[in-house]
Order: sequence, then structure tokens, then C-alpha cells
Amino acid sequence: MTKTLNHAARMADITPFYVMELLGRAKALEAQGRKIIHMEVGEPDFPTPEPIVEAGIRALAAGQTKYTLALGTPELREAIAKFYRQRYGVDISPRRIAVTPGASGALQLALAALIDPGDDVILADPGYPCNRNIIRLLGGNPVDIPVGIDTAYQLTPALVSRHITASTTAIMLTNPSNPTGTLVPSGNMAGILERTGGENVAPIIRATNTPINDRQRPTPARENRGKNSRRAALVVDEIYLGLVYGENTNAADTNTALALSEDIFVVSGFSKYFGMTGWRLGWLVAPESFMRVIEKLAQNLYLSAPTTAQHAALAAFESGTLKTLEARRKEFEQRRDFLLPALRKLGFDIPVTPRGAFYLYADCGRFSQDSLAFALEILENTGVAITPGLDFGKNSSQRHVRFAYTTCMENLREGVERLRDYLD
Amino acid sequence: MTKTLNHAARMADITPFYVMELLGRAKALEAQGRKIIHMEVGEPDFPTPEPIVEAGIRALAAGQTKYTLALGTPELREAIAKFYRQRYGVDISPRRIAVTPGASGALQLALAALIDPGDDVILADPGYPCNRNIIRLLGGNPVDIPVGIDTAYQLTPALVSRHITASTTAIMLTNPSNPTGTLVPSGNMAGILERTGGENVAPIIRATNTPINDRQRPTPARENRGKNSRRAALVVDEIYLGLVYGENTNAADTNTALALSEDIFVVSGFSKYFGMTGWRLGWLVAPESFMRVIEKLAQNLYLSAPTTAQHAALAAFESGTLKTLEARRKEFEQRRDFLLPALRKLGFDIPVTPRGAFYLYADCGRFSQDSLAFALEILENTGVAITPGLDFGKNSSQRHVRFAYTTCMENLREGVERLRDYLD
Repeated sequence: MTKTLNHAARMADITPFYVMELLGRAKALEAQGRKIIHMEVGEPDFPTPEPIVEAGIRALAAGQTKYTLALGTPELREAIAKFYRQRYGVDISPRRIAVTPGASGALQLALAALIDPGDDVILADPGYPCNRNIIRLLGGNPVDIPVGIDTAYQLTPALVSRHITASTTAIMLTNPSNPTGTLVPSGNMAGILERTGGENVAPIIRATNTPINDRQRPTPARENRGKNSRRAALVVDEIYLGLVYGENTNAADTNTALALSEDIFVVSGFSKYFGMTGWRLGWLVAPESFMRVIEKLAQNLYLSAPTTAQHAALAAFESGTLKTLEARRKEFEQRRDFLLPALRKLGFDIPVTPRGAFYLYADCGRFSQDSLAFALEILENTGVAITPGLDFGKNSSQRHVRFAYTTCMENLREGVERLRDYLD
Repeated sequence: MTKTLNHAARMADITPFYVMELLGRAKALEAQGRKIIHMEVGEPDFPTPEPIVEAGIRALAAGQTKYTLALGTPELREAIAKFYRQRYGVDISPRRIAVTPGASGALQLALAALIDPGDDVILADPGYPCNRNIIRLLGGNPVDIPVGIDTAYQLTPALVSRHITASTTAIMLTNPSNPTGTLVPSGNMAGILERTGGENVAPIIRATNTPINDRQRPTPARENRGKNSRRAALVVDEIYLGLVYGENTNAADTNTALALSEDIFVVSGFSKYFGMTGWRLGWLVAPESFMRVIEKLAQNLYLSAPTTAQHAALAAFESGTLKTLEARRKEFEQRRDFLLPALRKLGFDIPVTPRGAFYLYADCGRFSQDSLAFALEILENTGVAITPGLDFGKNSSQRHVRFAYTTCMENLREGVERLRDYLD
């Protein structure tokens, strides 16, 4: 028998990014000279603001190239805390902030600190695919809850009540949502938080001293018995929270979940609102009782976040930079206000007006019941690249596509025209 | 009953870095005005070479701040392949190279691609602690094999034969070793590779279609039944391979493991030899059949490695830079050649002469049987900071400490004098 090296069996459960197939084809078409309108990319088209780039250059010139502390430089943790105070009126101790390699790193820290093998994590479908995959890598079970227009594609207290069990370790929300751009409506975040430890939750008892390398251990966490009772943690991804549109951006329904409790995990970062994607810098705010565990995890998983980026990011909170970023937010809002009615007019069904991020999640059922084939067809025939719903879950994902307005108004106009010509 | 948020139970199995306790105390002493000689730090004291810093500054000024492809820029993957050709005479397809956020990122990719919950991974004790902890986070079992002076603190074909079972997914080597600086002796690497799929290995059959979120699944991989036979993978951490001393640095016993087979995983990066710690840039070389899975993992775990660092690292392979790096290697060698006999003379037992990295692993049994207490005592009384053996495993770790020669000769001399005054 020939012996081969096999992938871990669970790799079959880690979903690929279908959009990569689109991108490959888009590149091939571009190589042939076609102009592609990119509306598939989850990355702002704006460059990193000048003061941040300059601070990065200064840091490099000054030789700031060594490891930092695992949780980040004290200056940056302090600056992030100050940002929460100024923008959201919330007092966060810098001790609760871990600086991470991108929001991805923050997601890993939070989930690794919470999940034991066999634990359940509740999340919305459609949703950001990496969440599910990181949960799977940690041996947890992503429990996808189909959400639709009736709840603005978000979990609600009622949905959480219906699905939470004693084996639920965490409930994940993305606010605003990727791919739908919708918010958790006012009050619902507090209601969900209540449900995490509310009367409906059968107390779970978990063992704290079973060594992980005890290979005989077959018991999922929900069957463990120990001395502590616990409740599920609320993990909120707020990477798009800086990009909320409309007049009431400081109203309660667009505030950080951190305003509600000190026992919440918030994932965030510098990539989207601050325009620092390639710098790979994010942060996690966690309950203070988790910080020692999170520091251990940071040491083991990544040692420290990129140093130049940590120095550069200090300039992200300067008033000049924030002014630039607010102007960009307005620009995103104008794009949304153009693209949303334009796509509706073409026959895409977008029943909930997205309040944030830079995505429109559109029902393409009038044109196709196969979102990947549809996205490829559109690309081939119009040169417009969009993301198939398939990338965000299983809930009606065959009849949805995501449009990103991460390209300039001129391109958006041209994209809409090309789509009109083809779909008519 | 009050309900609290609990850490994942397995966090108790993720070991802390004891050296952090040392560092905290060292900082307190420094704040009091004491001069501390740092011999605990696993980071070169040399700054990043000037051409790399300049390339980083140029990349920032040119606006290179967006995400790259998940596996890294084609230019850098190409440059790494070329480096293997020129330095080690080994032909590696750039397609087999994934650019990662530090060697830590490469370690995660390799282990996540290989390990199913319940799988065993064989490693040497003493060894780099993050290896074990990442294995635990993925649900694997680190199988620590005590190694000593008879095998130069490395695994051997005989040791692997003795411990490999049908549930062994991978064998990890660090070459040169952290904390011992010793190499896998010539021929042993090939012998170990042979054992991974040799006659001694009972064929393992693994299921490839059991979904991870099937919560009823209690079977560790070794009990699975499926249609493929497999062998254990060899994962070699070569992050210190650029730092090998003596005349025969190009001889077979100091070559990359990649020379042996296309079915090997090699973890490496820009932090140690190239002096780019804070940039967080590493790479993984994997068998070509794993690259699609590794790309999926990269997309999910970190999206892409830091962009500026990827551009800057292209300058790491320029001849001027390599000249600087080779001069630094000589400097490290001189430090080793000073510190090794000096510590032996003081009464530390270092029976195997380390051939690489920048560490000396010393038996301090003449002075103490409690390496953490001893390190703290030394720090308090002499101002010399060293790492307790406890950080590297359980095998005689109470009577060992690690000295890092990552500080200048003057400091090393002063450190040795202080130790002599105190220990005499």
C-alpha cells in the first residue's frame, strides 16, 4: 500500500472563498485587455491616510522594528481607549485591549479563549465565513441561524432564546453585518446580552481540570460536570462600526456594544474605517478577567502585532486624519445612495436598506438560482465582478450576491449601465 | 447561582511564558536605576539591515498598503525560492511557498493543515513551547519525547521508531534547536523521514468525510476508518538555520530538510537571521498537494501577511544585505565562543557544544534544582536576566536555564563577571 501525506480530514469542512474563482477569471479577462469593474472586493479603494503613512515612515527611519509586548505598545492601547471615550463615550481600561494582527487575530484570540472542543457558537447566516472556519479549527461547532429580512439579517433576542443551549459558549454578531450592511437594531443587542445568561439558559457546568491531552476524553463540553456555572459570551465584530451612515451615527443604535457591559468581547481594527488593510492591525477588547489568558494566547499565536503598524496607527486618531476619514465615510454613503436604488431598479431585491459597511446584499432570484454561476455569467458578459452569496453561508445563498461599493462613483455608474444593458 | 464567563477549560493547558515574570521584575529593577544585562531575549540585538528598512520606506511612500494575495506577493515567493537555490542548492517551486505573518503563522498553517482532533504530534522536550500550545489549540496531542545529551537534544530515527504510532500525524523538529542550539546530526534527518512512512508504522486509515460539526463524533483519528493510508508528516522549523557556526555551514548536516524530499513542511522566516522580528514575516514551504488547503487556511486565519514587510523583505536577499548578515553571523559565533567556555568555567554544565541559533542551554544543577527561583535569584542579585528551563518543557527543566547571546560582547563579559562574583 502506498502511503501518502493526507490533509487533516476537517479541511473538507473549511470552506473556500468562491470569490477567488471570480478573481482568477477577472484577472484573466484583464490580461486580455478587458476593463473589469471590481465590486467584489472587501477593501476600501482609498489609500491609507497620509499622516498614518508618514508616521509609519518615521517609525521605520527611527528603527522601530523590534517585537513589542504581546498585547501591543502601551501607547496604542491607551490611544484606542481614548478613541472609545471620545467617539462612543465609553470608558474602556487600556488593560482590556489587546492589539492584534488584523481583526482576524482578534477573532482568533476571543474564540480560542472561549471555545472548548464540542462547544457551540451561535451565529447569523449569512455571515462572514472566517468566523465559522476559525470556530471549526478550534474544535467548536458553528451553529448557523438563518436570518432574513424580518430581522434585518441579524440575530434577535428571540432567535437567541430559541437556539441557546447549555453547550452554547458564545454568540457572535457582526455589526454592521458583512455581507448585508445591516445593524443590530436598537435594544436588540442589550436583549441578546440578557439572553446569554438569562432564565432560559440551563446552567452549564464545565470541567476545568481535564487535560486536553487526555486522549480518552470523548465528552463534549455540554456533558462535562464541574464546579462552575457559566453563561455564553457575546462576541461582537465591530470592524465596520466606523462606517455607519445617516444622521444619527451617535445614537444608541449605532454605539459600540462595549457601552452595555464590561463582559463583552469586541473585535475591531484599523483595516476598514481607518484604511489600513495591508498593515494587518486590529484589536480585541475583552473582559478584564480574560486578559491573562489572552496574553498567553497572543504570545503563542503571534508573539506581537506588526511594530511599524502599531506606531503608524497612533496617527489614525489625530483630528486631521479623522477629518479625512469622515469625508470618506460621506463618500461611501453617497455611493450607497446611488447604488441601492440603481440595483433595485435593475430587478435586484434589496428589501432592507443597509445602514453601514460598504456592502449591498441582493436577492438575484429574478435572474438566477445559482449565485456562483450568475456571478461568473455577469463577469463574463459585463466585466462586473461581484461576490456569490455562497461565500456567506447556506441560507438562500444560491439566490444572493454581494455588491461592494469600494470603487469610485464613476465605476459604479459604469457598472450599473453595463448590468442594465445585459440584464434588460 | 451567579453565572460567570469562563475561560475555555483547555486554557489551563496552555503554558504561560515564565520568562515574562522575569521580564516584569527586570523592568521594575531598571525603573529603580539598575543596569540589567539581558540574556533572556530571543531577539537579535542588531537592527534590521539598512537596505531592508529603506525598501520598507519606499514601499510605504509608494502606497503599498493594500492586502496582498493570501499566499503572498509573487515577487517575494519567487525571491524565497531563489534564496533556497543559491544558499542551499535546492530547487523549490514558488508555488510551494506561503508567505506568513511570522514563523508563528507558518507553524499554524502547517499544523492546522495536518492535525485532526485526537491526532498525536511527536516533538522533542526541551523545545519551543509555542509548538505544543498550537497543537493543543487545534485539538491535537503533543507527545513530548525527552531528549538529552546522548542525542544532542534532538530526536533521532531510533526515538521516532520507538514512539511513532498509527495516530502520529506529524513529527516536529527544530533545527537548530531552541533552546539548545544543537543540530539534527547528519543523516538523522533522512533517517527520521524514512521512519515516518517506514515499515514500523502501522498504516492508518482516516475518514475524510466526517463533518467536524457532527457532535456525536467521539472517535480520535487513530480509530477512524477510511479509504486512504497515510504516513506522518515531517515538520521542520528552520527559523534559526541561517545562524549555524563553524566552517562547514554548507555541508550536508547544515542543509535545509527540503533537500531530502518534496513531502516535507519547512517553517522559516525573516525574524532571526534577517533581523526583521517586529515586521512579522515568515514563510512555509509545504508539499504541493497541500497548497490549496493552505491557501484556504491563510484566507481564513490572516487574509495576508503585512504588505510593507513583504516589499521590504525583497531587499533581504540583496548581496549587500547578505554580506551584513554574514558579518553578524560571525559576531554571534564569537559571542558563543566567548560565552560557552566562560559559563562552563562558572560551573554551568553545557555538555553539547551548540552549533547554531543564539542560545546556550545550561544545566544549573550545581546551583539550584528550581530553575525559575534560580533565574529570579540571579536577576535580583546580579542584574543578569536569563530564561528558566521551565519554559521549554518538563524534561529536567527545573535544573536548566537558557542563556541568549543576543547582546553585545561587552555586556556578555560584564554579565559573566557579575555571575562569577555572585556564584563564587
